[in-house]
Amino acid sequence: MSDNPLDEYRASIDNIDAALVYLLSERFKKTTKIGAYKAENGLPASDLGREESQIARLRQLSLDAKLDPSFSEKMLKFIVDEVIRHHERQAADRAGEAGDTA
Amino acid sequence: MSDNPLDEYRASIDNIDAALVYLLSERFKKTTKIGAYKAENGLPASDLGREESQIARLRQLSLDAKLDPSFSEKMLKFIVDEVIRHHERQAADRAGEAGDTA
Repeated sequence: MSDNPLDEYRASIDNIDAALVYLLSERFKKTTKIGAYKAENGLPASDLGREESQIARLRQLSLDAKLDPSFSEKMLKFIVDEVIRHHERQAADRAGEAGDTA
Repeated sequence: MSDNPLDEYRASIDNIDAALVYLLSERFKKTTKIGAYKAENGLPASDLGREESQIARLRQLSLDAKLDPSFSEKMLKFIVDEVIRHHERQAADRAGEAGDTA
């Protein structure tokens, strides 16, 4: 055992970060499926109504969890921006494939 | 049940987001304790060596989880920037308290 009291907290943070990585990986699996569906059906990459309801829900969850709601909102925006980039790439890939067979 | 196939994916995403919120709340509990210790001991809010080892670890975990390592790195940076702001506030609050009793 280390004498540094920070080490115990950091070991917990490392565990939490590993859980976050695996959860985010699962999350991107779902958004990849959404991206494929949107690309197939010509739907836009972003969906403002959905994002607004996600933000409202996350703000309430954050209050319950004693997490700063504005941090959660920024965090969701950060993740959603990445998701939208993925969706746009999926749509462009699909358009490219369609062009190949035209 | 809805006929919209996106609804099933979105229900899973909502579950994952709730888990992320609760995990992040636990993570901030730990970093708040670290901030208090650093403020008490006059340690700097950020620790470059620690951050570098966290990034290296997260990159490897991301590869294992099939998550884009550069996304994980950006995400960690986003969280750590928030943590550092908290630590700086804790140090300033402590300095203020010390001033009051001087």
